[in-house]
Amino acid sequence: MAADSTTPPHTQPRRSRVRVHNMFVSLDGYAAGSFVTHDEPFGEAIALVQGFDGRAIAGIDTLDGPLSVDHAMTSLWGQGIGVEIMGRRKFGPQSGPWTDDDWRGWWGEEPPFETPVIVLTHHEREPIEFDNGTVFHFLDADPADALQRARDLAPGTDVRIGGGPRTVQQFLDADLIDFMHLVIQPVTIGSGTPLFPEGLSPAERFDIDTVSTGGGRTHQLWNRKQEPPTRE
Amino acid sequence: MAADSTTPPHTQPRRSRVRVHNMFVSLDGYAAGSFVTHDEPFGEAIALVQGFDGRAIAGIDTLDGPLSVDHAMTSLWGQGIGVEIMGRRKFGPQSGPWTDDDWRGWWGEEPPFETPVIVLTHHEREPIEFDNGTVFHFLDADPADALQRARDLAPGTDVRIGGGPRTVQQFLDADLIDFMHLVIQPVTIGSGTPLFPEGLSPAERFDIDTVSTGGGRTHQLWNRKQEPPTRE
Repeated sequence: MAADSTTPPHTQPRRSRVRVHNMFVSLDGYAAGSFVTHDEPFGEAIALVQGFDGRAIAGIDTLDGPLSVDHAMTSLWGQGIGVEIMGRRKFGPQSGPWTDDDWRGWWGEEPPFETPVIVLTHHEREPIEFDNGTVFHFLDADPADALQRARDLAPGTDVRIGGGPRTVQQFLDADLIDFMHLVIQPVTIGSGTPLFPEGLSPAERFDIDTVSTGGGRTHQLWNRKQEPPTRE
Repeated sequence: MAADSTTPPHTQPRRSRVRVHNMFVSLDGYAAGSFVTHDEPFGEAIALVQGFDGRAIAGIDTLDGPLSVDHAMTSLWGQGIGVEIMGRRKFGPQSGPWTDDDWRGWWGEEPPFETPVIVLTHHEREPIEFDNGTVFHFLDADPADALQRARDLAPGTDVRIGGGPRTVQQFLDADLIDFMHLVIQPVTIGSGTPLFPEGLSPAERFDIDTVSTGGGRTHQLWNRKQEPPTRE
């Protein structure tokens, strides 16, 4: 039964959202460079994250110094998230069958996720666990099945699609994204991995809120258009 | 010894900040109405909090529906805060000696603070504790002494000055505020409690960042100007 439209919103059960955060895009639409290595996870597109203080993803309490609107936006990253889905290239630079079993991700022994993380790969393997609550699960699945698995791992919480760009594209193509936070940087890259799938018309599916934070940087918040409440 | 200016910021010990959040101000500078009662904590100035979703102070994970820039700003409220200092009028509508010992604040049995809270009053009394970690301490002290007591209660965390406006004014007058988040609403009140002490020139002491979020609402972030690093 649909929730009665006269019920105050806070008494309705909360719906699990699928969210993307801190997705950096160049003026020419690229979200990553072409060349990703162990040493350079962003490839030659490092300018994309200029001015970004990654510590704020864990909340502004980890920062000293001034608190900015950019920090506020960045700090949404972990709020209410119980699980992440990422592409294999975000986990590491390898492709094909796993040859380096010692690789445990870019993040050392304290990965910032602190939740289950599903790594999409055609080559499944045993999970990798960390003391801080991060557990990487390796799954060969399409976006819908991966999302179902994520919800099973962390019922009732929001799911973050962590990138990279190709993974976000697949979830956009499948119309599975409820919320997207883009950070549009005043740089051009010229080549690399574009973020947007062909033929996407975001304003048809999403309400788009925009805020500029100085230095030429713009944040966009895409919220899936709400369906009108069902009356019975 | 001052931290060496060549030390990367993240390796310096974090300084405890004194912060104000979600401070609503009318176009004519008022932060509360004249008449505050049990039933109407904002008095006739209820228009000041129009469009404000108070649930977001605990983080966006408590929200369903669209996520906005306003929510991101509101959700800074609790991040990194270990203790609040509030004026007596925020705790309740009484003044003078306590006559109603049953009054435990506006918030029922789940006050949103979940930390120690210092209530400034000339009439000290025993602390009031709640199961969720909120403990109200009643203290007769000037701003500097109250701040010292707050830091003793929650070492190494940020201190929030929770209002009302007169309390924020006192801390501004004593130059004890490091960060202030104002929400300037497109309403006029005409009378009530002004927020700003006479003769305040905020731009002399603070770097001011501004963002507009639609509907005529503007957020200001005041960050205390940084002193240049000491070289030895």
